[in-house]
Amino acid sequence: MDTKKILAAYKKQGARVETKARVKLTEKKDFSLWYTPGVGVASLHLAKHPKDARLMSVKKNSVAIVSDGSAVLGLGNIGPYGALPVMEGKALIFKEKGGVDAWPLVLDTHDPDEIVRIVKAISPNFGGINLEDIKAPECFDIEKRLTEELDIPVMHDDQHGTAIVVLAGLINAAKVVKKPFGKLRIVISGAGAAGTAVAKLLLAAGARDIILLDRAGAIFRGRAGLTSHKAELAELTNPRREAGGLAEAMRGADVFIGVSGKGLLKAEQVASMAPGAIVFALANPDPEILPDEAWRAGAEVVGTGRSDFPNQINNALVFPGIFRGALDTGVKKITTATKLRAAKALAALITKPSPEKVIPDLLDPRVVKAVAGAVR
Amino acid sequence: MDTKKILAAYKKQGARVETKARVKLTEKKDFSLWYTPGVGVASLHLAKHPKDARLMSVKKNSVAIVSDGSAVLGLGNIGPYGALPVMEGKALIFKEKGGVDAWPLVLDTHDPDEIVRIVKAISPNFGGINLEDIKAPECFDIEKRLTEELDIPVMHDDQHGTAIVVLAGLINAAKVVKKPFGKLRIVISGAGAAGTAVAKLLLAAGARDIILLDRAGAIFRGRAGLTSHKAELAELTNPRREAGGLAEAMRGADVFIGVSGKGLLKAEQVASMAPGAIVFALANPDPEILPDEAWRAGAEVVGTGRSDFPNQINNALVFPGIFRGALDTGVKKITTATKLRAAKALAALITKPSPEKVIPDLLDPRVVKAVAGAVR
Repeated sequence: MDTKKILAAYKKQGARVETKARVKLTEKKDFSLWYTPGVGVASLHLAKHPKDARLMSVKKNSVAIVSDGSAVLGLGNIGPYGALPVMEGKALIFKEKGGVDAWPLVLDTHDPDEIVRIVKAISPNFGGINLEDIKAPECFDIEKRLTEELDIPVMHDDQHGTAIVVLAGLINAAKVVKKPFGKLRIVISGAGAAGTAVAKLLLAAGARDIILLDRAGAIFRGRAGLTSHKAELAELTNPRREAGGLAEAMRGADVFIGVSGKGLLKAEQVASMAPGAIVFALANPDPEILPDEAWRAGAEVVGTGRSDFPNQINNALVFPGIFRGALDTGVKKITTATKLRAAKALAALITKPSPEKVIPDLLDPRVVKAVAGAVR
Repeated sequence: MDTKKILAAYKKQGARVETKARVKLTEKKDFSLWYTPGVGVASLHLAKHPKDARLMSVKKNSVAIVSDGSAVLGLGNIGPYGALPVMEGKALIFKEKGGVDAWPLVLDTHDPDEIVRIVKAISPNFGGINLEDIKAPECFDIEKRLTEELDIPVMHDDQHGTAIVVLAGLINAAKVVKKPFGKLRIVISGAGAAGTAVAKLLLAAGARDIILLDRAGAIFRGRAGLTSHKAELAELTNPRREAGGLAEAMRGADVFIGVSGKGLLKAEQVASMAPGAIVFALANPDPEILPDEAWRAGAEVVGTGRSDFPNQINNALVFPGIFRGALDTGVKKITTATKLRAAKALAALITKPSPEKVIPDLLDPRVVKAVAGAVR
């Protein structure tokens, strides 16, 4: 569908999510019970027992999808209105896939302190906070503070949803190319929110050889001018302390993971990878390389974030299940152990991985249950 | 229904509102259109044309119900969790009556500056802001600043919803007791958010003799220690500068409007009113006097805020229509002219007012359309 038709469809559609009453208001007694005077009983109860909001209010099943629009898809800082369609799309998927009542909350501010204050202030209404499309490094601090200070689960989906689905895809892709996971040479293009979390989760899963690249090239211990978060990455990754650009890093690599931008990966760089190359080009909406080109250049397994190619490595496979599980179990943190379990559960849904099928389909009805089951 | 049964019903029910998808996600192409890559088109468009959010996002039909829990019903400052059931009940009524997608947003802060900042920051997601249960005098400043600074309608419902429905009821009640509206001697118990707005709207509608009372008694020009908002009320009301308590004010009055607290009005005070007395005892959930007692003391027209007595003078008759009209017409302010039109439209639905019927029923299907039609 071309851009014009897509825009027309959105304009014709209007909102993609709405609210729905879960009780009827057809008789006077319905108003007496669910509004006044009945609601006064519920209010006095929750004033004394705020924890019961999880039993008897929207908090039971709701998630706020919070973004400041500073890193929307691969489109960059396009502000709260630019972010709104994405958050609304997530609200749609939350409901349709996870049965979760999520509401978009784009914020007209980029100040991390203010974002933290706002999310804390609105937290009574929600059973979980899905942070989204907030740029690095601000996103790390915002997530950390909110996780520490709130008693509901907080997850920055660009980080952890992406990391979980990448790990799931990579577990199966490694089987397809018959290479042991722990020996994969992995190149990650993009050291923002997603790249950082992917690197950390792959390390937690047993990967040992990861090179992360930002705009300045490979991140290595001792590189001049590293920010604190990149200095931390330099400690954790790039064991041979390789410098250089993407072309250098890709030579002989087993895996490319792109969480960067449109068209950044060249066919000749794919051709320079080791045999049985795995290419996850996840920039949205336009990947680092289009699948056809990657295949022609010799990649064996190719994935993108998009719905219109095979192997959709998209966090939509993850966030509905993670929050479904969190709301059902009442856990307060999404731990690394949970993320590893979720990735393995997702990977295990594909009993016979093949080059075109390393990850379940978004339409696979088993996905949410498998991921939710990992939260405990 | 007793308190125990009501609480059990709320606990069994869980949430009273949920979200609902307005598009289907059953095929891959649905994800391509409504999520990635399609959503990128909508995002880039809204980044450039933020006003189109009103055409193609949740902003088209949504209202945030914002409260800090500082003045919940007649229960006082019971905090955000105490407020949550009321806001959720309003979300339910918004949807069922007005077709408006409203979401509760109780805030865990009482700082007016912070409330203003938060509401401004979240405003991109919503087509209107319903402020609720925020105590006076903070509510006046919060509403004023938000109305000035936002380009979507903002209405503090405790003020203006209440004022509109009281005026509607009083227009018809005056007909029942055959007194000219402009000559009514009106006593308002409570000079908070509701009392202030009721007084101002009644004055705008032609009332000339209003006495407002707070905890210290009648508000009159020159009373010691008046706050600025009460000093303003003293200028506008109480033309004879009467001092004293409720008992003194009620002697010979035509109308009592209670927006104060449980049981504050005594039977002997009703008995001291002029013949054809009108008593609107609107404190929720427990009125200033119960209808039976007011009737026995000689009142001719009695109304409360509750669903289980006749003449429910409740802003639930107003807010769904006001915001329905505002969303449909795109108006940015709810003006005094709009409020007067809404009250008259509401009153006009009762062609033959009687002591038991001065205001339409919450179940009356004509209400929302009549009120919405006043917004233009």
